Amino acid sequence: MLVVMKRGASQTEIDAVVARIEEFGITPVPLPGAERMAIGTFGSTSRAAAEAVESLPGVAEVVPVSRPFKLASREVIPEDTVVHVGPVPLGGASALAVIAGPCSIESRDQILATARAVRAAGATALRGGAFKPRSSPYTFRGLGVDGLELLAEARAETGLAIVTEVLTPGDVDAVARTADCLQIGARNMQNYALLDAVGEQPKPVLLKRGMSATIEEFLLSAEYMLARGNRNVILCERGIRTFEKYTRNTFDVSALPLLKRLTHLPVLADPSHGTGKWYLVAPVGLSAVAAGADGLLIEVHPSPDHALSDGFQSLTFENFAALMSKVAAVASAVGRCVGGPIRA
Amino acid sequence: MLVVMKRGASQTEIDAVVARIEEFGITPVPLPGAERMAIGTFGSTSRAAAEAVESLPGVAEVVPVSRPFKLASREVIPEDTVVHVGPVPLGGASALAVIAGPCSIESRDQILATARAVRAAGATALRGGAFKPRSSPYTFRGLGVDGLELLAEARAETGLAIVTEVLTPGDVDAVARTADCLQIGARNMQNYALLDAVGEQPKPVLLKRGMSATIEEFLLSAEYMLARGNRNVILCERGIRTFEKYTRNTFDVSALPLLKRLTHLPVLADPSHGTGKWYLVAPVGLSAVAAGADGLLIEVHPSPDHALSDGFQSLTFENFAALMSKVAAVASAVGRCVGGPIRA
Amino acid sequence: MLVVMKRGASQTEIDAVVARIEEFGITPVPLPGAERMAIGTFGSTSRAAAEAVESLPGVAEVVPVSRPFKLASREVIPEDTVVHVGPVPLGGASALAVIAGPCSIESRDQILATARAVRAAGATALRGGAFKPRSSPYTFRGLGVDGLELLAEARAETGLAIVTEVLTPGDVDAVARTADCLQIGARNMQNYALLDAVGEQPKPVLLKRGMSATIEEFLLSAEYMLARGNRNVILCERGIRTFEKYTRNTFDVSALPLLKRLTHLPVLADPSHGTGKWYLVAPVGLSAVAAGADGLLIEVHPSPDHALSDGFQSLTFENFAALMSKVAAVASAVGRCVGGPIRA
Amino acid sequence: MLVVMKRGASQTEIDAVVARIEEFGITPVPLPGAERMAIGTFGSTSRAAAEAVESLPGVAEVVPVSRPFKLASREVIPEDTVVHVGPVPLGGASALAVIAGPCSIESRDQILATARAVRAAGATALRGGAFKPRSSPYTFRGLGVDGLELLAEARAETGLAIVTEVLTPGDVDAVARTADCLQIGARNMQNYALLDAVGEQPKPVLLKRGMSATIEEFLLSAEYMLARGNRNVILCERGIRTFEKYTRNTFDVSALPLLKRLTHLPVLADPSHGTGKWYLVAPVGLSAVAAGADGLLIEVHPSPDHALSDGFQSLTFENFAALMSKVAAVASAVGRCVGGPIRA
Repeated sequence: MLVVMKRGASQTEIDAVVARIEEFGITPVPLPGAERMAIGTFGSTSRAAAEAVESLPGVAEVVPVSRPFKLASREVIPEDTVVHVGPVPLGGASALAVIAGPCSIESRDQILATARAVRAAGATALRGGAFKPRSSPYTFRGLGVDGLELLAEARAETGLAIVTEVLTPGDVDAVARTADCLQIGARNMQNYALLDAVGEQPKPVLLKRGMSATIEEFLLSAEYMLARGNRNVILCERGIRTFEKYTRNTFDVSALPLLKRLTHLPVLADPSHGTGKWYLVAPVGLSAVAAGADGLLIEVHPSPDHALSDGFQSLTFENFAALMSKVAAVASAVGRCVGGPIRA
Repeated sequence: MLVVMKRGASQTEIDAVVARIEEFGITPVPLPGAERMAIGTFGSTSRAAAEAVESLPGVAEVVPVSRPFKLASREVIPEDTVVHVGPVPLGGASALAVIAGPCSIESRDQILATARAVRAAGATALRGGAFKPRSSPYTFRGLGVDGLELLAEARAETGLAIVTEVLTPGDVDAVARTADCLQIGARNMQNYALLDAVGEQPKPVLLKRGMSATIEEFLLSAEYMLARGNRNVILCERGIRTFEKYTRNTFDVSALPLLKRLTHLPVLADPSHGTGKWYLVAPVGLSAVAAGADGLLIEVHPSPDHALSDGFQSLTFENFAALMSKVAAVASAVGRCVGGPIRA
Repeated sequence: MLVVMKRGASQTEIDAVVARIEEFGITPVPLPGAERMAIGTFGSTSRAAAEAVESLPGVAEVVPVSRPFKLASREVIPEDTVVHVGPVPLGGASALAVIAGPCSIESRDQILATARAVRAAGATALRGGAFKPRSSPYTFRGLGVDGLELLAEARAETGLAIVTEVLTPGDVDAVARTADCLQIGARNMQNYALLDAVGEQPKPVLLKRGMSATIEEFLLSAEYMLARGNRNVILCERGIRTFEKYTRNTFDVSALPLLKRLTHLPVLADPSHGTGKWYLVAPVGLSAVAAGADGLLIEVHPSPDHALSDGFQSLTFENFAALMSKVAAVASAVGRCVGGPIRA
Repeated sequence: MLVVMKRGASQTEIDAVVARIEEFGITPVPLPGAERMAIGTFGSTSRAAAEAVESLPGVAEVVPVSRPFKLASREVIPEDTVVHVGPVPLGGASALAVIAGPCSIESRDQILATARAVRAAGATALRGGAFKPRSSPYTFRGLGVDGLELLAEARAETGLAIVTEVLTPGDVDAVARTADCLQIGARNMQNYALLDAVGEQPKPVLLKRGMSATIEEFLLSAEYMLARGNRNVILCERGIRTFEKYTRNTFDVSALPLLKRLTHLPVLADPSHGTGKWYLVAPVGLSAVAAGADGLLIEVHPSPDHALSDGFQSLTFENFAALMSKVAAVASAVGRCVGGPIRA
């Protein structure tokens, strides 16, 4: 770490910082500048040491040098991690994965029709919410366990692996029994009890970036699961909250290449939540592919204007099929391909 | 709701919107404008109707008219709700409450010394974290159940009511057995399973605003607990995330009078998290009192530079006592007073 | 517009709103709802009327229906505007334009070498700052008029059209005499005196989005120039300010398709400022092409680590040439091509 | 500065950084850590050096240690600067200044009536816009020079010093001839040509914080004027742009004590623009006083619902008078007083 002293910090204050650093077993290195004193350190430092020093008199700022995430870091694990969602590989040199389906599972007909349609258009997995986080207590909250059964039926028929959200530690076992991949939603990115719970079971986890999470916080949440033993973590950018009002969120396209640089984990993009407008899903989805995403998460519904949730950001079957052919073209332009049929 | 059509929307598109609105049993009212057609409605509309219409061809925008929160709304319940945290009343014409204590409970000595000090300075309740949400899996995560016992001991000795955080539905019973008030942290503001769980038990709940939550989302999260039957909900502004880097968060002081206008629930301010710098806690705490807060939540630690968490935003006993006398002066200037001794 | 009354607004308050709307010559239409009264209007309304009504007693909210921009709107002018920067057409079905060059013109050698290199790699115009806006008064502020002459020399040699920034109305004439296109930087997006000045001369104007400008404000700034008579306006997304710290700005890729939908003006992308990191320029630039941008603005420098400004976001000649071949591939995947040689 | 190398940076890369630092005449100090190498420096460093090093291979990050503002810094000038606006002192131990008046000067009657009313209620100066920045080219843009004459007449009658905005360098002379203090609006905070122009004349300048300006950028803009020779600079917090939609801006109350700590310049608060809602002006204005502001800027209008601009955030005469008595009470609670009568 680097401790920057205030201009005019007294020698006594400087000495106290040096002494406090030494208490943590770290070697301080004074670095006098033209305007103020700074103190560097040799060797490993801890967050606790940084916080302790930060509140001492005369200290202007403490700058951490080590990154706080380890197992998620590409510096620690340079090779790409490939995660398998059912039979579908994600990350590294794998073909792009396209995980598509409705926001909420509403009925047997709806989920089966959607599964067939997205499979026909080339999707590699099926998404659908059985347990739905909704900002209002008065809106539809999902079919729950019945929804999981419908997902399993759709998988049996189409061979598509299934991805579905889990909201609370108490549901992890039930969801993990059925799903090929557990999704942690944006609102739960820092629900640490839930991260611990999914980190302690073996099914892959798709972690969505929180609405106002920094990249570092996002990677630290991944670190929670990695530290608990589950190395099958997939990251998903889904838009962040800004002042702009035309879109529901601002899709942070630069997060994709940045994450690919900082971490070895697979990185997906969700242009449906990332924009909140169905007519932006295709161009923003293609932009994500061009920027290096390992795959897409797309909301598709048989009849978006009758959807019980998120209709305004869902694609029709027709629009989804049109998008898939463009995805293949852009993927090819950047040296990737889209996942082919999943089973023989 | 008001449905705004695109300029140049066809009559067929307009007719389809009118027909879709009627399917929901609502009466549409066409409102031709100079540039485009809008369609208003008579009578009650639902979110489902709004979402259904939003994705129809030719629709530019759907503007909701009803507020989505009911039980939290001052329009529905005009009188101030007064919540009792142990013996301490919060809200309405009550004296200002000051809930003070360390970020984390670290040891018996630490929490007892702090309880005594904040009581002597005039605090009305004790806060302290037994279960700690931490963004890194490698930092101190609290003493857990042992911490709850230390809080109970501090209450027995000082008479201070205790407020402590609960992180997951599975811990609600244990925490509610000991605490006088359960805190839901900012990261869990939209952890709906947790909101349901605390909404189904009777102890008061202190709900912190999420880092990037709008006021409307904040009130909707309160609505979750109110809808489950717990009417003892306290709101707490604790800073929102912006681009500014000097402070940890941007304390949204205008949220205090705005919330007092929109809801009948008590509204507290947490200038410790709201700023993240101990030297800003006093001026920002006083600003909250001037703006109409019903009380303050303040981090206090016997030795901030040795704290295991949040040391840089904690006040020393001395600084806390100095703040308390200023709080009394500002409260008096705006026609309020600070809570007196809690027991005879 | 739609005037939403507060729940419990009195009949007297409603009557006053109705009367005030009528004062503006607009017809009010009462729309009683289940919870509250709303008042729609027939016919054209003005911003003044909306503001007048907003402060009346009992009014909760006024929702405008007309968009505030006219000449910039695709609803008013449906056909794509094609703007010519020197010989280079931008917008509509034109080939993608790539405007490349250094942040600042530093010397004759630097700008000439860069012009040759970007021309060889396929750029369609040269950018370079003669007048530089710098956040600190102590950093390099550009060569001024001497820089303009160097740009003219580079154009004479390479045939590349030149784009350069103007900072203040007093410099407009001098810059317009030399440049093929005047750039208005992000910090000046709402410098209305400057918008008026460039709007009153005929050279094309490249307007950058302000750091925290909404799409609507961006289009209103374009409207200033259009209203003054200059119809040759090009828009450029260059990243917005958010809480994320790894990148200098958050490149708002969804703004590209959104702008193409809302306006007929050409839309460029600047991934250099949009990310602030040279290693993100290529992936984010490609993402912009995939999302439908009409061209790119790229910072290129002979020796980025010796640049007097923005070195950390500039590409080397080699990296720029590598990007250009990828741009062509992605453009082709979305049915576009990149501008060919400019002169015979 | 501190140069942080990437984990696994090669010795060649480290040597290149060391050599490049030495080229700038600065002494590098290698600081090997547990995970990666960092390189500190002895002595004065420049921004140019930092930027040069940042783009070298193997460099992860460059952390500046010196603050980029000098003349604005309290570390350089520890004593409070007191600025006189006409006869009114601002800053240091001065009484609080309250600068009140309409957003725009609309007519002789309007400005004179307002001047009398705010004087009677205890205001210490009059504000009013003659040149108005408006986001739409179609809204009222002020009376221009005629407005300046009306301000002069109001001053002659009431003795109130006058503060008015200047938009462009060409108007600086005209405005400075009449006004006691020139205001630079939020949209022009980084209009450097304008900052230079007002920095070269002697009248005090009231600089508003840009909508998305960091505190550091705000102080750098002040530095522009200070560096040009004008030491009479007053800072004004007026709200920043966030995701919250209920308010027009988010008033950053913590900026007040933070600025008082970082700089010696006077710091005002504008709760009218800071909130955009007249009913929030009083509580947020009081919060600013409690947090240590040196004064307030308040929009007052004889008839807010007939104002040509900003009516929804303007106080009536009655509400302004009510606010003034509360301001006096809160000021007294924090050991300040409000400016008394200006002339004998």
